[in-house]
Amino acid sequence: MPVITFLIEGSGELQAEALPGEKLLDVARKVNVAIDAPCSGNGSCGKCRVRLERGELFSEKPRQISEEDYALGWRLACGCVVKGDADVFVPDIASAYKSRMKVADLSDERETAVFNAALADVKGAGIAFGTDLEVVPVRADAPSEDDTRADLDRLCDALGISAEQVSLDALRKLPTALRASDCRLECLARRSEKGLALIDLWAEGEKHPVCGVAVDIGTTTVSAVLMDLADGRILAKASSGNGQIRYGADVINRIIEASKEGGLKKLRSAVTEETVIPIILGMCRSAGVPAGQVYRVVIAGNTTMNHLFFGVTPDYIRLDPYVPAFMSLKSAEAWELGLPVFPRAEVLCAPNIGSYVGGDITAGTLSSMLWDSDEYRLFIDLGTNGELVFGCRDFMLSCACSAGPAFEGGEISCGMRATDGAIESCVIDESDMSFKFGVIGGEKPVGLCGSGLIDTIAELFRCRLIDSSGKIVAEDERVRTDEYGQKSYVLVPADGTGTGRTISLSEVDLDNFIRAKAAIFSAVRLMLQYADSSVDDIGQVLIAGGIGSGINMDNAVSIGMLPDIPREKYRYIGNSSLTGACCMLLSDEARAKVDEITSNMTYIELSRESTYMDEFVSACFLPHTDAGLFPSCKRI
Amino acid sequence: MPVITFLIEGSGELQAEALPGEKLLDVARKVNVAIDAPCSGNGSCGKCRVRLERGELFSEKPRQISEEDYALGWRLACGCVVKGDADVFVPDIASAYKSRMKVADLSDERETAVFNAALADVKGAGIAFGTDLEVVPVRADAPSEDDTRADLDRLCDALGISAEQVSLDALRKLPTALRASDCRLECLARRSEKGLALIDLWAEGEKHPVCGVAVDIGTTTVSAVLMDLADGRILAKASSGNGQIRYGADVINRIIEASKEGGLKKLRSAVTEETVIPIILGMCRSAGVPAGQVYRVVIAGNTTMNHLFFGVTPDYIRLDPYVPAFMSLKSAEAWELGLPVFPRAEVLCAPNIGSYVGGDITAGTLSSMLWDSDEYRLFIDLGTNGELVFGCRDFMLSCACSAGPAFEGGEISCGMRATDGAIESCVIDESDMSFKFGVIGGEKPVGLCGSGLIDTIAELFRCRLIDSSGKIVAEDERVRTDEYGQKSYVLVPADGTGTGRTISLSEVDLDNFIRAKAAIFSAVRLMLQYADSSVDDIGQVLIAGGIGSGINMDNAVSIGMLPDIPREKYRYIGNSSLTGACCMLLSDEARAKVDEITSNMTYIELSRESTYMDEFVSACFLPHTDAGLFPSCKRI
Repeated sequence: MPVITFLIEGSGELQAEALPGEKLLDVARKVNVAIDAPCSGNGSCGKCRVRLERGELFSEKPRQISEEDYALGWRLACGCVVKGDADVFVPDIASAYKSRMKVADLSDERETAVFNAALADVKGAGIAFGTDLEVVPVRADAPSEDDTRADLDRLCDALGISAEQVSLDALRKLPTALRASDCRLECLARRSEKGLALIDLWAEGEKHPVCGVAVDIGTTTVSAVLMDLADGRILAKASSGNGQIRYGADVINRIIEASKEGGLKKLRSAVTEETVIPIILGMCRSAGVPAGQVYRVVIAGNTTMNHLFFGVTPDYIRLDPYVPAFMSLKSAEAWELGLPVFPRAEVLCAPNIGSYVGGDITAGTLSSMLWDSDEYRLFIDLGTNGELVFGCRDFMLSCACSAGPAFEGGEISCGMRATDGAIESCVIDESDMSFKFGVIGGEKPVGLCGSGLIDTIAELFRCRLIDSSGKIVAEDERVRTDEYGQKSYVLVPADGTGTGRTISLSEVDLDNFIRAKAAIFSAVRLMLQYADSSVDDIGQVLIAGGIGSGINMDNAVSIGMLPDIPREKYRYIGNSSLTGACCMLLSDEARAKVDEITSNMTYIELSRESTYMDEFVSACFLPHTDAGLFPSCKRI
Repeated sequence: MPVITFLIEGSGELQAEALPGEKLLDVARKVNVAIDAPCSGNGSCGKCRVRLERGELFSEKPRQISEEDYALGWRLACGCVVKGDADVFVPDIASAYKSRMKVADLSDERETAVFNAALADVKGAGIAFGTDLEVVPVRADAPSEDDTRADLDRLCDALGISAEQVSLDALRKLPTALRASDCRLECLARRSEKGLALIDLWAEGEKHPVCGVAVDIGTTTVSAVLMDLADGRILAKASSGNGQIRYGADVINRIIEASKEGGLKKLRSAVTEETVIPIILGMCRSAGVPAGQVYRVVIAGNTTMNHLFFGVTPDYIRLDPYVPAFMSLKSAEAWELGLPVFPRAEVLCAPNIGSYVGGDITAGTLSSMLWDSDEYRLFIDLGTNGELVFGCRDFMLSCACSAGPAFEGGEISCGMRATDGAIESCVIDESDMSFKFGVIGGEKPVGLCGSGLIDTIAELFRCRLIDSSGKIVAEDERVRTDEYGQKSYVLVPADGTGTGRTISLSEVDLDNFIRAKAAIFSAVRLMLQYADSSVDDIGQVLIAGGIGSGINMDNAVSIGMLPDIPREKYRYIGNSSLTGACCMLLSDEARAKVDEITSNMTYIELSRESTYMDEFVSACFLPHTDAGLFPSCKRI
């Protein structure tokens, strides 16, 4: 059987046996070599570049790889199949896991301030913090020759409860704890209208924090916080890429993968065993808290992420009439999900609104305070797709638009996520038409991330190097035309980049990005029409999501991505999904409020709105077919 | 590192690395070579005989091995330690697992008749059969463009329940089942005062029996039945040795082993992974039922077995003041115990009465019908220890006596369990003083099981070959005296046995057996005194346990093991623990009745009764110091 050796930049070798004819990307997935494949291997994104070092692979030259690169051995992992033994180099940029991924994970002061302000807002609106978990001290009678009641009976008698109300976990700890503490215990109980359920116990005086974990499961990035439930202190925070990335960048590709034989298990394992569990264990380790002392978990993800995390098939989300398996899910415990926390820890899920607006948005809406606002607010979460909520105290509308992965560098030939080497800002000096780039990490650039794309496209448009339809109209030496007649504009020549590959934007890239920004803007327009409002009615625009913090709002407006309203109305609210999940973690009232928000929110399925397509087409220009919508935008 | 190769008779080789100085029995345990060690390796029982075939082991000649056998390489695995590489032969008779073990497991017609009669008795007393599990048919609305409720919501709406009431297991099956059946489902729900809890579901019309398993966990043997909960049909039955046997024959040795570092986990794994799980999977396979369709499990074991099965430390059972961790345990689910049945299946436990009278006796008392009797009844369960219940409808007393493992062949030099090759009956022909043995399987004998011991000792005593104190008074050529001056009586010479080893009874054996039967009889006496009754008040004696079926009652009475009352008052009631567990499996009322029995029963701790020791000493004779208690017994 042929053996493929993957030489992974920066992390050694991995070997896999393969069948002749097997797709190289599938071989890599089999042994968990994480090759970035936003399009899930259908050949469209061109991101799964690898280099053949030894041996042979069957492949045709794909359009995304130049003749020179092809001659050097560069291939798309999804576009070649195994022939015999081969060594394949997997460059770092193609690797899906990056600990240095820059995410809005409360890791800097600004994020922490935004987080604390949001929690204060929620509390300020009268939402009491506190959960159904309660530490109950108890002193039981000591066993003696005259009192030979079983340990469990003496505990139940002391608390006035019955054996049904004591979990097996608690019973297992009882004999030792009783005798270690002169029969003085602390019991952790869950109080409900069904009575007290005693779930754990320990000897009095033993240091035993009662902790919880909130997790935002994004399509691309997973972020989490470990908190002390008693006082709401943050004990640790962490984030990493979602292990499902190798099965496609967007939810549709994930659903398709999940519908294959064994797919659901694979996708669930990728997000659970490879992502959420290491994050939880890592946080517990860094905080010095045993994972068994995590008694409550809150999950906030989009509808598909929620389905995959809980192991429920998401198939019918993408099939007409687009029906999810669940909106609200209220019976899950940690053991059912394989989480290494306290086995009977409740795992709460921020409820979904519809097939494409999920718990990340309902949790995010809570922390956005939109539900408590007198003025109209627009809440936009820019993730792998764009989700929007518009409304106020009296009504709320929500929708999702298929902006796709362009804001995260997907479907852009030199696009990349906001990691080291990504161009995150761009200014063109009109005096000599030179480009000034801001690069994450400060080293040589290797590609463009979302905010870099917005700036670059805005600047190219401002300086009339591209026209309103995204066509390259410049005629300088930076313009290239490939063998298919496709024009591209060189931003950084090969000798100035970290990879030795030219960084450029093609007309296909420009078109892809314009469609993404058009999706957002047309969704805003449709929501306003639906509510019989205009942009002038918007009191505040709340921007959430990892991309949000770095956006130059002037540029985002000038390319017609966001409405042309006074810039001071824009406010960055960080990872609102994670913030909302933290509120639900610390407060049952917050949890009930999210349920209320969910039931009060109207879900608009854009694909069913007849005017959406017209709005979208009109928005596929820079800034818009109707330039009057962007009065503040001038060009040179 | 020295390598020990175990040559296991009838099942191949197993190798283990060992440290010089390591005990051979421990090396065998490490690699799960199951060597029978009823005394748990303290050198007293002499059962762990193995033969050194190659290499060397450090050991002194133990008293249980003759000079000749020692010269042939016979050793006690607990009495020798590793020196270097060695090959060790493990004879079949020393192997703890025997699929051919003969147990009261409903496998023959007589057992089945006894079982059916007991169930009919319980029903006849007005106990309704039926559980809180209910199959609820439901027809949900089909999803459409106008009805995009999530699957879970359409199910809840159809049933009038809320999302909290639906388990994650059910939700996971919902999307596919809905679409496979035109939205017609069958839901399995548990109904309680807390409302309906929907635990599973499937498409209407799918063959989906709702099954349950009852398990009797004996110290020596585990027996189980798989039943259809809808109609009470037996779908399969099975039994095997308790995998904990290698950690000692009696509960005290098991508790000591469990108290060692990692011991509880080891003992739990031995009974669960090695015993109960294979039994359950085997029954499901033979019945063609997926294990996931087992929704209820009932466990009946003695107090120690219950603790070990549920993973609760039994330490304090054997430490003054002898307090178990639990009597009744009501919150366990299959997932917590690692059982491969439906994860949320309730695992019920027949409640314990005290440290040494457990759920096997409370369940057995239910099926004995003692609780519903007008006349006084005595219920004796002869297992690895003896447990007794005396009483009637108005009162019940229970106690355990440390009869030890003698009835199962433990602590008897040629004793063995009731498997092939065991002498199970004995008659001495007075004309020529020849012995006629009944041997299980009909081949050459290899040892004596409990019923064979009773018969043989009764016959030796009847024919005045031994005296009232168990001393050998015969003077024929069958009497041997060893180098320590200990006499033994040869029953079958070496050339007539299946092993080539002489089968004999030594005075130590006789003494051990007499102490065992004395423990039973003195417990009976004490119970009667406690109730201010005499043997004449006993209306019926119910004998349960694997040994029970084969007992010759005349002989058992003549050696003073059981009271001298008309033999027709003795009735064999089979494996009453398993029968009672089956009742609890099929009937919540039976379960409640067992709780009631438990709370009405008085537990007598014999070790605290001042007269017990006197009674015991008086009973250590054949038949008794007070021969007047056994008027019907004549000797030749």
